[in-house]
Amino acid sequence: MFKPAIALLTLLCSGFAAADEGMWQPHQLKDLAQTLSDKGLNLDPDKMQNLDQFPMNAIISLGGCTASFVSPKGLALTNHHCAYGSIQYNSTEQNNLLENGFVAKTLADELPAAPGSRIYVTESLTDVTDKVSGAVHSALQGEAYQQAIEANEKALVAACETSQDYRCEVFSYHGGASYFLIKLLAIRDVRLVYAPPSSIGKFGGDTDNWMWPRHTGDWSYYRAYVGKDGKPADYSEDNVPYTPKAHLKVNAGGVSADDFVMVLGYPGRTNRYRTPVEVSNQFNWVYPTAKRYREEYIDVIKAVAPKGSDARIKYESTIAGLANYAKNYGSMITSYQQGDMQARKAELNRQLKAWIAADPKRQKAYGESLDQLDRLVEKGNAMQARDLVMGYMGRTAMWNVAKELVKLAHERSKPDAERNPGYQERDMNRFKQKMERVNRRFDASVDTEVLVHFIQEYLSLDSSQRVPAFDTFFGLNDGFDEAALREKIATMHANTELDDTDTRLALMNADFAALKASDDPFIRFAVALFDHDQAVEAQDKALEGELLKARPAYMQALIAYKQSRNEAVYADANSSLRITYGNVKGYSPKDGMMALPFTTLEGQLAKYIPGDEEFDLPASVRSHIQDKDYGPYANPELGSVAVNFLSTVDTTGGNSGSPTLNGDGELVGLLFDGVYESVIGDWDYDPNLNRSIHVSTPYMLWVMDKIDGAHNLLEEMTIVE
Amino acid sequence: MFKPAIALLTLLCSGFAAADEGMWQPHQLKDLAQTLSDKGLNLDPDKMQNLDQFPMNAIISLGGCTASFVSPKGLALTNHHCAYGSIQYNSTEQNNLLENGFVAKTLADELPAAPGSRIYVTESLTDVTDKVSGAVHSALQGEAYQQAIEANEKALVAACETSQDYRCEVFSYHGGASYFLIKLLAIRDVRLVYAPPSSIGKFGGDTDNWMWPRHTGDWSYYRAYVGKDGKPADYSEDNVPYTPKAHLKVNAGGVSADDFVMVLGYPGRTNRYRTPVEVSNQFNWVYPTAKRYREEYIDVIKAVAPKGSDARIKYESTIAGLANYAKNYGSMITSYQQGDMQARKAELNRQLKAWIAADPKRQKAYGESLDQLDRLVEKGNAMQARDLVMGYMGRTAMWNVAKELVKLAHERSKPDAERNPGYQERDMNRFKQKMERVNRRFDASVDTEVLVHFIQEYLSLDSSQRVPAFDTFFGLNDGFDEAALREKIATMHANTELDDTDTRLALMNADFAALKASDDPFIRFAVALFDHDQAVEAQDKALEGELLKARPAYMQALIAYKQSRNEAVYADANSSLRITYGNVKGYSPKDGMMALPFTTLEGQLAKYIPGDEEFDLPASVRSHIQDKDYGPYANPELGSVAVNFLSTVDTTGGNSGSPTLNGDGELVGLLFDGVYESVIGDWDYDPNLNRSIHVSTPYMLWVMDKIDGAHNLLEEMTIVE
Repeated sequence: MFKPAIALLTLLCSGFAAADEGMWQPHQLKDLAQTLSDKGLNLDPDKMQNLDQFPMNAIISLGGCTASFVSPKGLALTNHHCAYGSIQYNSTEQNNLLENGFVAKTLADELPAAPGSRIYVTESLTDVTDKVSGAVHSALQGEAYQQAIEANEKALVAACETSQDYRCEVFSYHGGASYFLIKLLAIRDVRLVYAPPSSIGKFGGDTDNWMWPRHTGDWSYYRAYVGKDGKPADYSEDNVPYTPKAHLKVNAGGVSADDFVMVLGYPGRTNRYRTPVEVSNQFNWVYPTAKRYREEYIDVIKAVAPKGSDARIKYESTIAGLANYAKNYGSMITSYQQGDMQARKAELNRQLKAWIAADPKRQKAYGESLDQLDRLVEKGNAMQARDLVMGYMGRTAMWNVAKELVKLAHERSKPDAERNPGYQERDMNRFKQKMERVNRRFDASVDTEVLVHFIQEYLSLDSSQRVPAFDTFFGLNDGFDEAALREKIATMHANTELDDTDTRLALMNADFAALKASDDPFIRFAVALFDHDQAVEAQDKALEGELLKARPAYMQALIAYKQSRNEAVYADANSSLRITYGNVKGYSPKDGMMALPFTTLEGQLAKYIPGDEEFDLPASVRSHIQDKDYGPYANPELGSVAVNFLSTVDTTGGNSGSPTLNGDGELVGLLFDGVYESVIGDWDYDPNLNRSIHVSTPYMLWVMDKIDGAHNLLEEMTIVE
Repeated sequence: MFKPAIALLTLLCSGFAAADEGMWQPHQLKDLAQTLSDKGLNLDPDKMQNLDQFPMNAIISLGGCTASFVSPKGLALTNHHCAYGSIQYNSTEQNNLLENGFVAKTLADELPAAPGSRIYVTESLTDVTDKVSGAVHSALQGEAYQQAIEANEKALVAACETSQDYRCEVFSYHGGASYFLIKLLAIRDVRLVYAPPSSIGKFGGDTDNWMWPRHTGDWSYYRAYVGKDGKPADYSEDNVPYTPKAHLKVNAGGVSADDFVMVLGYPGRTNRYRTPVEVSNQFNWVYPTAKRYREEYIDVIKAVAPKGSDARIKYESTIAGLANYAKNYGSMITSYQQGDMQARKAELNRQLKAWIAADPKRQKAYGESLDQLDRLVEKGNAMQARDLVMGYMGRTAMWNVAKELVKLAHERSKPDAERNPGYQERDMNRFKQKMERVNRRFDASVDTEVLVHFIQEYLSLDSSQRVPAFDTFFGLNDGFDEAALREKIATMHANTELDDTDTRLALMNADFAALKASDDPFIRFAVALFDHDQAVEAQDKALEGELLKARPAYMQALIAYKQSRNEAVYADANSSLRITYGNVKGYSPKDGMMALPFTTLEGQLAKYIPGDEEFDLPASVRSHIQDKDYGPYANPELGSVAVNFLSTVDTTGGNSGSPTLNGDGELVGLLFDGVYESVIGDWDYDPNLNRSIHVSTPYMLWVMDKIDGAHNLLEEMTIVE
């Protein structure tokens, strides 16, 4: 076999032309030194790659969101929407912190974050390609290859996780072309320090989500606590604030148009190097179908659970989640249809093939890789209609719980190291928390109708997509009787005991044989589907194994080609630490219109709708704006305080809460969203349309100073002009 | 009595600080000379006021729209929406000119415009204040005063209209402070020369109406024909093109951002000098109520006449008209609520009162005027709820026809000079055309439900608003029985003969006694209401008479005050010829967004939706845009052809089709709309938000050159670079 990693690193180590596109790994910074310096970075890129030093050591992960240390006492700044669960967790009818906001005036006033909250500090990033794919015999194929890779990864993680103080993960880059072991210090005493009222922190609500102009004060503060020995510890009154190795200074002046900015954080996932076949399938089938499914799912919920009903309250966040990505997919479909990404991907593929064909050595090295990847992708897509509709049905609570418990029982029969990820002992805490949360978002009548609806979608699929065990269980072979199906599912819901939390937790310890013998209707359902699910899992792993060879080969060809054209090469986002840079800049969302780079306090006030769920504003905010009481936070060019700003930095989900730094590494903003036209940016960075949205530091400081009176925090932070 | 006109003219004749706000009368141009010159006018303002000379003589009225001569052979440029009736009139199933567009390649190919089409050339503007109000004894009050004013106006008009070649009108300025007699040459052989396909001329449809960004090619060409003697004549093959005294040159390069532009035309009506009481009533009661009535009217039509039904087709333009102004009112209500016009009007009133009170001479001259006007306005508003709902019911066809015919019979019993305007012999042509058009927009089942609906609205009003004759006729005194009412109105519709065109035309000659004896149910209705209608008319005239004294007094005070502050004073629009000037300029419709001053071909293509009613585009337009085949029409700063542009000029309805000229008096665009945020501009010019929308000449020429092949017209016009 070829060893892609070494070739890759060689390729990646030379300098190349850079654009604002790119989510760069820390070790790549030295290659970007000239560009960064030209654009306005005053820090030494060589030093910036050092995780032990400023500013990298101040950049932390919350698991899904990013945060940063902004004081020597472990004060951590992140998005309001990232701390939302903790604010909600501490809210009571008497004191609704979501509504009122929260300012801990002393350490003693700080509140425990929601259970399971963690602050992860990246301690090391180690290239382990040799130990993961490099240590696997190239003769292995399919599932065997996948299992070998997974075993190597698990071994590295097990060796790294020396105590519960650390969480380790192996991340693959370029589809498996290289692997890094990441070691995170896991601080588990996390406390809520500050949250603005939702009318600031969530101002604009779903209406403004992904939109510009934006006026959202999307920030909050946590604090990391450790034991007196400085090591992570369970919550205790005796714990003390964690002392980070570095923290960010806060620039009270913020930024001006065209200023250099960079964002450090943990972007979740992008798909910038997908093939034309993959892109076409995604935008012509997956997104349109998933968007429709989400809209139908919402329609069913709304029909069964009228506004204000108890059931509806339980499903509001489900609806929000479904709607959020229905909107997201809608944006991507529109951008795809209006843009030329498909044509460019096809053209790139054509050029790549021509470049390979032009040289016998390249032909030998890469000749097969493109066709091989296409074959595997098409193989993977063959059953996607079945999998997608099953996936949406799998969101119903009892179905999901039953399948998870049966799967867990099966996995627990294996030695820990051999279990599937997600079912190892290290995962049991999260598993348990998930089981505990079920009833908050479950109503039997809603889920019954969701299943009745999607079983009809399932029945409309091509016969090749049918699952015999499923058809048998629900009696779908002898024609379709909607009333009978509804009755059967309603009865299952009526008779199951999985809606009882204690029952679920107890069943986490049940063995597989016991579950097979259960007469709980949902357990029986999961058992009936188990062989099918296992077969699908095996097929998926076999395909994954093949892809773990094919995609690195394709990426190596693509990278070599791009390198030959002096084009930037960075890995797709994978939740590992990245740096992206750019400038404060507006954009033209459509002909004849220009989105300006800043919004102002006056614009926030103009959106105010008294008592509205999304556009209400605290009276003190309104009166301070009306009085033009800007304090020292006004931007002279705007004649007001900048609320949000736009920049060209290249970000995605997971970057939420990432600090936005100026050329001196000072905090000037907090990333929290992208504009509607750049939702497709996960697939395609368009320098004309890709814009990230940040809260400005002057607005944060203005609110903390004028509105919230959070002067203790202002004093704790290092604020520079 | 005081004679306001002389005082006024004195006041208006000195120079004053000017802004882009203002619709100026030609004689005021000399006072604006310095400002105009500073802004970029290269023509002599003194000469511009001469109606006999370029450019004024090139500016013509279509009655409701403006146009301009653009060739020595009477070629007249106006909006597509102003020529719409004529394009529709010449369309057949075989050759749908609306859909396909139309280019007459020779004079012989030109088509007669819709019946009644006129081109009016303003020949003279004469101050007749002395002969109108100056010749009325100040002792006259109320209706007597109004009648005296009206008699003087009619006498002037009669003396002026020496033949059917002329139409004369007396326009009042500043609510009756001054009067001008306007003499118009009325050319009555008007022919359609050119129309782009509606997919260009109406591109964007109702969705884009009043909106920016805009990409509408809203222009068409007429030609004025006269007899061989050069005088207006009825249509004849022997007629020849009219030779205007001046025509505009067309600048192929158009404009750039910030360029000086001016618009010459016939703006219809503004309300810039209304009192706080009037403004408050209009925005807090009239517009919200009228908006609701319009929306309800549409709902009723849609419920009775489903999409695609014959009845619906008849009401599509009614729906469009209702919706158009529902949107218009909605914009004004929003702007009013978000803005501070009411507060500024109140503040102005306060300052005006203080200024008057500060000087005994002023107190004597103006002291009473403000309170007196408020009293009259409140008197006029007392029955507005009744009048508004009656007005919407009066839009139904049979009701309207019956009332018009009964009124006509009554007026015809008087000598011509004593009849109400609209019922004199000079009006009979228009009256007849209106009677002929009725059936095209009438369906009995729709009108029945409209009346049933609005009678219920009427019944919900305060009892003071009830009309006894109306209640008696419909039996509304003994409780409300919806089914019985519906049955009664449906029976009226079933039995009336007013739905027959010949019957209606015949009844134009019926005498009042004959109508009183008619058993046609709608004539009986109109007769039953006649005394009430006459009483209301008398009250209205009495009030009008009082207002014709009070408003000039108020305006004189206001003008004197503004003059003392060196503020601009121009008269509200009244359909007479005006000049407004400004610059090509974008605006910020909301915080964080900027509307750019130009749209481009690429933006038009981006809006394209295949086969859509509003956003379809001809294939040739699309391919020429895709090929970037701009010809010589590209704006180098845009890198494309400008389609529409924004300017700060102060315009309103009636300005549609007005030529937009550069500082050299060359045509650079064609005004056709204002932006949504400036709909309230009829009440309040906001320099930050008031923007007019123009088609650019480069776009017109590009379409005529590349798409339509209208090279004969391009050659006929004088095109300069």
